[in-house]
Amino acid sequence: MKKYLSELLGTFVLVFFGTGTAVMASLNPDNNVGIFGIAFAFGLTVIAAAYAIGDISGGHLNPAISFAMFLDKRLSLKDFAIYSVFQTIGALLATTLIWAILKSFKTEIPFSYGANAPGDLTIWGAFLVEVILTFVFVFVVLSVTKTKFIAPSLAVLVIGFTLTMVHLIGIPLTGTSVNPARSIAPALFTGGEALSTLWIFIVAPLVGAAVAAVTHNYLES
Amino acid sequence: MKKYLSELLGTFVLVFFGTGTAVMASLNPDNNVGIFGIAFAFGLTVIAAAYAIGDISGGHLNPAISFAMFLDKRLSLKDFAIYSVFQTIGALLATTLIWAILKSFKTEIPFSYGANAPGDLTIWGAFLVEVILTFVFVFVVLSVTKTKFIAPSLAVLVIGFTLTMVHLIGIPLTGTSVNPARSIAPALFTGGEALSTLWIFIVAPLVGAAVAAVTHNYLES
Amino acid sequence: MKKYLSELLGTFVLVFFGTGTAVMASLNPDNNVGIFGIAFAFGLTVIAAAYAIGDISGGHLNPAISFAMFLDKRLSLKDFAIYSVFQTIGALLATTLIWAILKSFKTEIPFSYGANAPGDLTIWGAFLVEVILTFVFVFVVLSVTKTKFIAPSLAVLVIGFTLTMVHLIGIPLTGTSVNPARSIAPALFTGGEALSTLWIFIVAPLVGAAVAAVTHNYLES
Amino acid sequence: MKKYLSELLGTFVLVFFGTGTAVMASLNPDNNVGIFGIAFAFGLTVIAAAYAIGDISGGHLNPAISFAMFLDKRLSLKDFAIYSVFQTIGALLATTLIWAILKSFKTEIPFSYGANAPGDLTIWGAFLVEVILTFVFVFVVLSVTKTKFIAPSLAVLVIGFTLTMVHLIGIPLTGTSVNPARSIAPALFTGGEALSTLWIFIVAPLVGAAVAAVTHNYLES
Repeated sequence: MKKYLSELLGTFVLVFFGTGTAVMASLNPDNNVGIFGIAFAFGLTVIAAAYAIGDISGGHLNPAISFAMFLDKRLSLKDFAIYSVFQTIGALLATTLIWAILKSFKTEIPFSYGANAPGDLTIWGAFLVEVILTFVFVFVVLSVTKTKFIAPSLAVLVIGFTLTMVHLIGIPLTGTSVNPARSIAPALFTGGEALSTLWIFIVAPLVGAAVAAVTHNYLES
Repeated sequence: MKKYLSELLGTFVLVFFGTGTAVMASLNPDNNVGIFGIAFAFGLTVIAAAYAIGDISGGHLNPAISFAMFLDKRLSLKDFAIYSVFQTIGALLATTLIWAILKSFKTEIPFSYGANAPGDLTIWGAFLVEVILTFVFVFVVLSVTKTKFIAPSLAVLVIGFTLTMVHLIGIPLTGTSVNPARSIAPALFTGGEALSTLWIFIVAPLVGAAVAAVTHNYLES
Repeated sequence: MKKYLSELLGTFVLVFFGTGTAVMASLNPDNNVGIFGIAFAFGLTVIAAAYAIGDISGGHLNPAISFAMFLDKRLSLKDFAIYSVFQTIGALLATTLIWAILKSFKTEIPFSYGANAPGDLTIWGAFLVEVILTFVFVFVVLSVTKTKFIAPSLAVLVIGFTLTMVHLIGIPLTGTSVNPARSIAPALFTGGEALSTLWIFIVAPLVGAAVAAVTHNYLES
Repeated sequence: MKKYLSELLGTFVLVFFGTGTAVMASLNPDNNVGIFGIAFAFGLTVIAAAYAIGDISGGHLNPAISFAMFLDKRLSLKDFAIYSVFQTIGALLATTLIWAILKSFKTEIPFSYGANAPGDLTIWGAFLVEVILTFVFVFVVLSVTKTKFIAPSLAVLVIGFTLTMVHLIGIPLTGTSVNPARSIAPALFTGGEALSTLWIFIVAPLVGAAVAAVTHNYLES
């Protein structure tokens, strides 16, 4: 049970601080956070959360990573399923708390929840972007957690920095999901286009993760 | 005595460079520091100070961390009390030096001391924010200083980056305390609302630290 | 074959996320990426890609680095040639995908491919800049991958940060190449001045790499 | 001789990329480098240069550090003197190259050399700032290169980040010297106030380094 709760807590950290920074930045556009600051925040959530709980659950924080770990035979099908549920619950808790904080402003303000959307891209353009971004992200995760080229201690740092890299290009395109759990909660709170295109941000990351697992299996074996 | 003086020096570094960067950034708003730069500066103060003095005192720099270490039975009650006093003195010294530097400007300028305040939030909104932020920050501190998942050498780096993450979301909300010593000195120098709401930034971090200690104790045992 | 495909994949990551971030930033100029964010992105591509594939191919991602490794007798002439070809193919794939994504915007937008150019510099000014930048970059690569002063695990992190340092000064000058493979693909897609001055961004990095190999050989032996 | 040339090369990297980024940023004020980017660049120069040459000369890159190492009995008086000379030559070479690059612009542009100055501070305000900044910087250097709390491999990373921290607060005050070699070259090229106040940026860092050596000696023994 502790490993499931750890994934819940870790994904809570990812969504609360990641999308939370995005939400606050949009309320303070002149304050020098922007895409760079948000991308950096997402990377830091992985560094903070996965180092803290990594010894308990592995610190996946993301169903796409758990899926790749399952495909790479490092996680059982059952645990992949339960991890995904607890990750999604953690993300829902985080979005709920962001809602509560924004509701506690002295004067009411309009706000968003940091949901993903195809934005200026077509549906298939957004799908392609999410597949590529998740492919690279998950390929790096699979490699650095196995290779002897890097001390196990450093792997999480590299994964966090890789997530920052992914967001730097991805935020202006789709807002960057590469993580179904990160996308579900804000979409439920936001509704509308965020909800009707939510499938992109669930399916494409899983496709990208599968391609990463196959590539990793070929190159690293 | 050396460990107490080390905490004084370390907290001096945290407040002088952390709130000092915030003060200077507010005087040079067009110079690309902003929330991101200030959040980064706070993280760096931990990296610089805690690596330098960690072998002497542990490098807490924060009564909330010392409190959690006491609850986790890694620090005596007496040392928690003395650490807190020396941390607060270090912070007072830092704020005094910032005052001295700002007074040495050739022409007088209006300036602030980087005090915390509920800002646009209600009192309880600010309280909630500080509890959550401190909970996550202290939970990461308790975990990465104990787990075998990370080389002890790297723990301080992760803690610094976590403090940056905490500031990225927290600066636009409360200015981010998560540290009573960091809040007391600027509030004393600033007075007014900063002083009348100072209790939030003392009590909430201690509550967050207690929740972190309980959570850590459950998950990591 | 796997090592060649790894270089292809790694250089794909470098160009897709590096120049891709530059392209997206130019479409969103108010979003706080700019030179700093792009410089950071390039550094992160090395950290992500070279840690992931380093145990397979060394993770050069750059013909100038492979050239220096050949001069330092750590790579055969044949592998230098094949690495360079696969690195260039990876870069071409990345630029093609950037083109595909930009073409999938709902409304057509004018865009660039992040090509290098002498910009406001004379031809020889640009040449000088690229020689100096590549000299320092490759000298650091040659040293940190060999010295006992640094854990092998950390070397890639240092190399990534060095590439960020190189871009911070180089982007406003030439756009920063220091890597022939990174320059060829965008120049082919862009044409015009980017193509007619492409030789600078192939020859100067190789000259800089040769100077680095000689300096390294003198100082470190 | 190799250790002296290494210090020359390392300080060349520090000044070329550090002040060079500052010079370029001032020519492109809308491009998101600013104080944060320049502070980051200075930190990266230490990471790049000191890791590359650290095993040869220690990678001081700064007469104030060499002075503290002499006071802490880790460097001979003779080597302190020769290091300082070669560090200053490296800085002069770097400033000369920055001059050459700026002269190779197609159209003449007005430019600065990134010299230090008291700016809006009084002489003694600037002196105080430089003493405090150098004290903290050198104290961290002395500690992390000796303590068992941190892997030797990581020390340079921490020192680089500390230099970034120092610049974040120091750039809007004095431009941040904490390094006589870094200040001499731009002052010679700039003349005027930069030259007449150069003594501050030579004497204050040495005073700060001495205070750091005494504090380190007391706390760490």
